[in-house]
Amino acid sequence: MSKKYKVIFQPSGRRGDVHEGKTLMESAQQLGVDLEGICGGKGTCGKCKVRIDEGYFEKDAIDSRMAHLSPFSEGEGKFIKHGDGPNMRLACSTYLHGDVKIFVPEKSRAGKQIVRKTAKEISIALDPAVRKYFVELQKPTLHDLTMSDMERLKKFMQEEYGLSGLTVDYPVIVDLQDTLRKGDWKTTVSVWMGQEIVKVEPGFVEVNYGLAVDVGTTTVAAYLCDMSTGKVVATESMMNPQVPYGEDVMSRITYAMTNDDGLDTMQEAIISGINELIDKATADLKANGAAGAESITDMTVVFNTAMHHIFLGFNPEYIGRSPFIPAIQNDINIKARDLGININRASYIHVLPLEAGFVGADNVGVLIAEEPYNQDEKVLIIDIGTNGELLLGNRDSLCSTSCATGPAFEGAQIKFGMRAAPGAIERVVIDPETKEPRYKVIGKADWHTHIEKVDAKGICGSGIIDVAAEMFKGGIIDKSGRFVPDLDTPRVRKGADGKPEYVLAWANETSIGSDITVTQSDIRALQLAKGALYAGAKLMMKKMGIEKLDRVMLAGAFGSYINKESALTLGMFPDCDIEKVYAIGNAAGDGALMALLNIGKRKEARERARWLEFVEIAVEPEFEREFMRAMHIPHMKDKFTNLKKMLDERGAPVKVKG
Amino acid sequence: MSKKYKVIFQPSGRRGDVHEGKTLMESAQQLGVDLEGICGGKGTCGKCKVRIDEGYFEKDAIDSRMAHLSPFSEGEGKFIKHGDGPNMRLACSTYLHGDVKIFVPEKSRAGKQIVRKTAKEISIALDPAVRKYFVELQKPTLHDLTMSDMERLKKFMQEEYGLSGLTVDYPVIVDLQDTLRKGDWKTTVSVWMGQEIVKVEPGFVEVNYGLAVDVGTTTVAAYLCDMSTGKVVATESMMNPQVPYGEDVMSRITYAMTNDDGLDTMQEAIISGINELIDKATADLKANGAAGAESITDMTVVFNTAMHHIFLGFNPEYIGRSPFIPAIQNDINIKARDLGININRASYIHVLPLEAGFVGADNVGVLIAEEPYNQDEKVLIIDIGTNGELLLGNRDSLCSTSCATGPAFEGAQIKFGMRAAPGAIERVVIDPETKEPRYKVIGKADWHTHIEKVDAKGICGSGIIDVAAEMFKGGIIDKSGRFVPDLDTPRVRKGADGKPEYVLAWANETSIGSDITVTQSDIRALQLAKGALYAGAKLMMKKMGIEKLDRVMLAGAFGSYINKESALTLGMFPDCDIEKVYAIGNAAGDGALMALLNIGKRKEARERARWLEFVEIAVEPEFEREFMRAMHIPHMKDKFTNLKKMLDERGAPVKVKG
Repeated sequence: MSKKYKVIFQPSGRRGDVHEGKTLMESAQQLGVDLEGICGGKGTCGKCKVRIDEGYFEKDAIDSRMAHLSPFSEGEGKFIKHGDGPNMRLACSTYLHGDVKIFVPEKSRAGKQIVRKTAKEISIALDPAVRKYFVELQKPTLHDLTMSDMERLKKFMQEEYGLSGLTVDYPVIVDLQDTLRKGDWKTTVSVWMGQEIVKVEPGFVEVNYGLAVDVGTTTVAAYLCDMSTGKVVATESMMNPQVPYGEDVMSRITYAMTNDDGLDTMQEAIISGINELIDKATADLKANGAAGAESITDMTVVFNTAMHHIFLGFNPEYIGRSPFIPAIQNDINIKARDLGININRASYIHVLPLEAGFVGADNVGVLIAEEPYNQDEKVLIIDIGTNGELLLGNRDSLCSTSCATGPAFEGAQIKFGMRAAPGAIERVVIDPETKEPRYKVIGKADWHTHIEKVDAKGICGSGIIDVAAEMFKGGIIDKSGRFVPDLDTPRVRKGADGKPEYVLAWANETSIGSDITVTQSDIRALQLAKGALYAGAKLMMKKMGIEKLDRVMLAGAFGSYINKESALTLGMFPDCDIEKVYAIGNAAGDGALMALLNIGKRKEARERARWLEFVEIAVEPEFEREFMRAMHIPHMKDKFTNLKKMLDERGAPVKVKG
Repeated sequence: MSKKYKVIFQPSGRRGDVHEGKTLMESAQQLGVDLEGICGGKGTCGKCKVRIDEGYFEKDAIDSRMAHLSPFSEGEGKFIKHGDGPNMRLACSTYLHGDVKIFVPEKSRAGKQIVRKTAKEISIALDPAVRKYFVELQKPTLHDLTMSDMERLKKFMQEEYGLSGLTVDYPVIVDLQDTLRKGDWKTTVSVWMGQEIVKVEPGFVEVNYGLAVDVGTTTVAAYLCDMSTGKVVATESMMNPQVPYGEDVMSRITYAMTNDDGLDTMQEAIISGINELIDKATADLKANGAAGAESITDMTVVFNTAMHHIFLGFNPEYIGRSPFIPAIQNDINIKARDLGININRASYIHVLPLEAGFVGADNVGVLIAEEPYNQDEKVLIIDIGTNGELLLGNRDSLCSTSCATGPAFEGAQIKFGMRAAPGAIERVVIDPETKEPRYKVIGKADWHTHIEKVDAKGICGSGIIDVAAEMFKGGIIDKSGRFVPDLDTPRVRKGADGKPEYVLAWANETSIGSDITVTQSDIRALQLAKGALYAGAKLMMKKMGIEKLDRVMLAGAFGSYINKESALTLGMFPDCDIEKVYAIGNAAGDGALMALLNIGKRKEARERARWLEFVEIAVEPEFEREFMRAMHIPHMKDKFTNLKKMLDERGAPVKVKG
């Protein structure tokens, strides 16, 4: 093994020994230090700036070859400017060759994301895959010599419950004899799909726990459910522990392809993350004397195609490049023990089917949760996570596509973009006359009034949508997204890149010690993202001959928090009556939960995932033109008449001087 | 952790650190020293005598509390006599409290057993559970977007081979995409039972390896077979690595019950033992550039009920005591990875069914290998391993039982008994006039002629049968097994216990430095063993109304090596024309091999194991009387007229003076 060096991170104080040649980003991951890294360590986002406090140069070094770090690279030069102060480096591009002490500026800290995925109350008939049966056997005697415990149990299941031909999973047989005797020949048997015994417990056990899991690129949510009542008894969520290996799908695929154990590392990260959620979700049960994680006898899981492959340990290389072929598309049932998921060993993990290439099981979750195939209305469902996935149609026909929106909606590619974490500006209004903004910061109850210090740190997705829409309505940018020249306000000025920028928060309102601005290139990034969504939806509509949407549904955490008016103002999706635009929350998670509670939903998922048509938008000949057109911000049209009224009626005061 | 002490074993020179409080037997196991331990460390066989060369007492100790070993126990006193020399202890009853140097006398060394299980040529139609199919897929294009690699493979299997509804095991999906691309879209697919894909390999692969395993209490044998030709390509065997935990079934069950990790320890021992056999069996394939253990795609296994339970990790407690209920009786298929068997991860281990209580899958192996249910002749099949298992009947009806013969046939409970290893006396003739014996020792080509030193070490099973029969025919013992008094020969003398004994080998012919004798209690032990067998067979005959056996088949290694005449002389089984007594070799292993090569045999095993009747001999009211009667050595009857002739004709000279 190579040499190790001492690395200390401030202000957290975390420290440890790290191998020669590792990057500072890898050192941070190893030592559990929060550090932004949206591009997955490729040196393209510039978010991981750190200051080297000790070890930048050997004290008595006469040239840079003696430095404790690799030389400053050209790539770093693109992001690190004079204004950043001395001794700044990009953590992902700086390699360790000696002891160092690092300071992580506030702006570079990842922060703890506010997880917004929750399960709504779901109304569904209970028909779970795993059902429990109470069994009371006769104590065997010498006359039972030719009947084993297992055969006697199977005979009982057949005679009492009409379940014939049951198979029994191996770990169940291992437990059987002790369990029967422990329960004095009374036992509760869990049967999967009426086919296979997956658990035996001593005595009578009524509750029957299942877990529905939604693995998002950024957030993982788990819903613990009593399948005998349908009640969600615990909801737990966490940042996807794969984030340090790449913020978006493509960076993780790249990480898997460029690191020998990259796939294993990320698979282990998500598996142990889910096990952590399981431990948390079952902690209360355990505290009440019940069994813990092993009392969970079934699990469903949804995710996009890349998260699906990485979770299952499938090489994601082939879904990352043309012709984008997944390993498997249909739903699969995999033993928990084969994946290392710490629920009941013999239970299955039901992985929902993929639709195609980039349209994953999460979108199938949305599909079965919302059932557009049972509706007359022509509906557009937009699931905006780190990717944008669209469903369009009704009972007659339905198609789906995936839009490469890029991560702008999640705050990446935006100069002061950040995730929806405390300190993020999430709501903005701009006075069209004075061009003065007001904003609301996550973690603060009220809108910013300049009375108390708000400690803004950056702008999250919904804030970016808001500020761009308000800048348009306030005449700061035009419909092409360009800054309107010669405005008489100190808020608009020339940025470091020589292009105009809008100052959303002055340095003294922030916790990062500098102004928070919205730049011309931020607006461009947003236009690209929303243009991709809009063009995708528009092309699908053309393809299906739909002229007008009856309904738009916004799924996902982001969809729940964006301002509908702002989204319509910007033209994130084709026109629709604003009253028919709904936020439906984490529909993917709802779908996972429904599939947990009702096996009919699994069948529906299997059939409908094959029934709907997948459209590869990017290869459509019209895409380019539609996309260019969709980049523009549309004129306010007649149907927005009541929008103005709503804007005036909303709670936040519009006119305030800075 | 507790303290550790230095332990050195001589003459092997093995040394190492052993935890405080371990027995010397456990120390020997830990350090890989061969040490006899027939009773499994219970202090009841007295075979593990060792001499303490250093550390018996602390040099300057003033009392025994300072000794490096636990005090001499009463139990040891029963076995260790003055004649054994100074500083002798029973290794299983002596606990470590300091550094010691131990000498293991020749007599106490386990030796390397000669494994006699071999697979005979078997003629059977090939219909294995796993078949290979060659597949050539089209390279996918962007137009295949809605078809994953797995779905395209399944479509091909359906269209080309008519295999619809195939399932795919999880590890296969993990490998699929890389394999397809490695083989340039050509692949060989292994399908189990026409249902499940268990392996994909790049390119065209013709050979199709399977493994049949016979786990005996004492010996484990593995037959590597090319299932596409039926040819056995390698046979490997070893001493069952569980022997150190108990020589017979009951001692191992006790070991599991009395040690916290006893079951795990023994399960791990047999699993890693089988993995070792797999490595050896596939070494040649590997040397020739083929894949190793992972090229094995199927495996069958037979064993008695206790070995079955321990191999599978089932608590053997309940089969060890009344009412002797096994966990499962039917055949089961368990994934290799669930058991830790290092063949292809996704493949199944097919465990043949048990008959009942003590009649295990090994006897089912015998059953399907010999097919008594397809014969008119009334046949008795005796499988003498460490247990005696009997099958009796023909196509009309068949019953089975298990006889508690005890381990006398394997050399245990016999003063100079030992396993069939080099140095064991395996054949004996005695001159009826002079009472002088001649014998043959395993490892020496010729019968002992007093010309060269033979280094006899003990007597193995077939030698014990021979010597007892010869002693009877030579008038040394009578039909009740008692020594005939006042014989004029130095060979018969009074033993240390005051009872008569017969000197089979003088000290100068042995390697153990003392006379090898056959004692009155040896003869009693043998009578008990053969009486149990005989009574079992006799009672089954009565039960089925069979007066005369048409045929007797002796299965198992022991059955292959005993002298038929001696067996008949002693009355090991009811009368049968000697020409109709056959040794059939390792029929249990043959059955495992047949089940590997033909799935019809698995079905036959499943059905016939349930069809035949199990008789619990010990609970039959007549058993006691029949058993007492069977202890006697029968008179030579008319049907033995040609036996005398055969005895005269046999090769070994009968009359030789000492």
